[in-house]
Amino acid sequence: MSETSASAPLSLWADGPAKQRILDAIAAMTDASSASYVEPRRRIATFDNDGTLWCEKPMYAQFMFLLYRWKAMAAADPSLLEVQPYKAAVENDFVWFSDLYAHLPDLLKGVGDAFAGITPDEFDVEVEAFFAAARHPTYGVPLHHLTYLPMLELLALLRESGFKVLITTGGGRDFVRVVSEEIYDMPREAVIGSSSVIEYKDGKLIRGNTLGSTIDDGPGKPVHIFERTGFTPAFAGGNADGDIQMLESAQFALLVHHDDEQREFAYDTDAENALALAEKNDWLVVSMKNDFVKVFGEART
Amino acid sequence: MSETSASAPLSLWADGPAKQRILDAIAAMTDASSASYVEPRRRIATFDNDGTLWCEKPMYAQFMFLLYRWKAMAAADPSLLEVQPYKAAVENDFVWFSDLYAHLPDLLKGVGDAFAGITPDEFDVEVEAFFAAARHPTYGVPLHHLTYLPMLELLALLRESGFKVLITTGGGRDFVRVVSEEIYDMPREAVIGSSSVIEYKDGKLIRGNTLGSTIDDGPGKPVHIFERTGFTPAFAGGNADGDIQMLESAQFALLVHHDDEQREFAYDTDAENALALAEKNDWLVVSMKNDFVKVFGEART
Repeated sequence: MSETSASAPLSLWADGPAKQRILDAIAAMTDASSASYVEPRRRIATFDNDGTLWCEKPMYAQFMFLLYRWKAMAAADPSLLEVQPYKAAVENDFVWFSDLYAHLPDLLKGVGDAFAGITPDEFDVEVEAFFAAARHPTYGVPLHHLTYLPMLELLALLRESGFKVLITTGGGRDFVRVVSEEIYDMPREAVIGSSSVIEYKDGKLIRGNTLGSTIDDGPGKPVHIFERTGFTPAFAGGNADGDIQMLESAQFALLVHHDDEQREFAYDTDAENALALAEKNDWLVVSMKNDFVKVFGEART
Repeated sequence: MSETSASAPLSLWADGPAKQRILDAIAAMTDASSASYVEPRRRIATFDNDGTLWCEKPMYAQFMFLLYRWKAMAAADPSLLEVQPYKAAVENDFVWFSDLYAHLPDLLKGVGDAFAGITPDEFDVEVEAFFAAARHPTYGVPLHHLTYLPMLELLALLRESGFKVLITTGGGRDFVRVVSEEIYDMPREAVIGSSSVIEYKDGKLIRGNTLGSTIDDGPGKPVHIFERTGFTPAFAGGNADGDIQMLESAQFALLVHHDDEQREFAYDTDAENALALAEKNDWLVVSMKNDFVKVFGEART
């Protein structure tokens, strides 16, 4: 990564207006004579994860992890085979899961119970086992391989330009933290996200069975970014409606558009409002099809 | 700071067992051949603020800030002169404030209402105005002057040794963040603490009128440190019972003992359990009287 960005910034981005606008924005934010200058202490760059930095289709990695866990729990305790969401997980009953609203109480209870009562270290072991075993449903490769290389290049360029780069994931903070060092070159503390309540009992940290205050989605994103950093972001990237408030709160906003059916997936679902606002607010819409020279690494191009 | 610590580490600490134990601990944590070695990603050092990094007597700076705000609110709206805690603030009625439990509902409402509905930027302006005007009740100097120089030297040494140094204050996170860059050479994001709920409404961040989830005290400290960093601390410093769980969760723990009536204040109140546990758990107890060559900077020595 460093050699490409040192010699030719954003070499994995096609020459054109999107790449140019990113380079211009970063140049202006780091130029003390520019009206867009951002002093170093305020150079916070925040990126959604699912669909912005790695592939989120046909299902979230976080959801695959829950399925994996629910299956393991049902294998250990067969009485769960008659209880939702364990039954649907074992039967790969995606129709059941797709009716999110009807099944929300069962789902939330299942999410809460999945890792309740274990320590952060025990949780990490589960996540590591999942990533070692998991394969993407259609690509068939480990999920690690499905980060968007041009986006990683952008993160590196921002870091080189003095930005503190953070991930704000609607998925599990502690789930993404287990792999953030390896796949994003980002320390655990750089990941903000949703989480179960964490408690301190009998001298150790324990995961509770309810979700913590605000989910890291929608208005929760700028709130969590402020709580974490003391600032709103100077630069932000997202891909979906859940990123709108974060993008709104940023000085420069970028929206990844999934329009590349051949190399990835083409969909606007749950991004319709963000796409409309991008036009209204002049956010940069990045076409994966036209602006990315490559999408994935070795396993896929 | 850097010149002293480069030439003679902890020059503001008296030669003796406390200083030696700190130097030995840091040396071991950064020596890959030591059993106490801490890999760089886990080098998290966390410090309580009130009574650990700056003076907390005869009252917390945070409490002085609330008094300042309540007085200003009562001046702007005289009907508040008959309402608590505004009345007690205007009358400097510390007897009323001292009966914390009887007056808790009024106090919590007063704390919640003090900054409700304003933006973070507006809050910063209030904090800056407070620090510009405030003088310590007995020393008569700006509160900035009342940080403990040997502790600042320790923070610098930890940073030089590859530690990420964080403050975990039971007081207001956003209050301390306004001055952390100036007085601790620490960015805003390095301050963890208690906070009102922050909301995102109509395109901006607004302070709510209730306290957020867990207060950053007692078990809240290790929970917040984990949420912020993904780890428990390798090195932690505190001075009171509210720091016990943080110290318990750390590999190396240090307790500042206020035994210097001449240069600061001598008190064990609200630190009795921590002092007893220090003996039991072999935490380092730092005597301000014997281990600090200097306590404060120019204004006081």
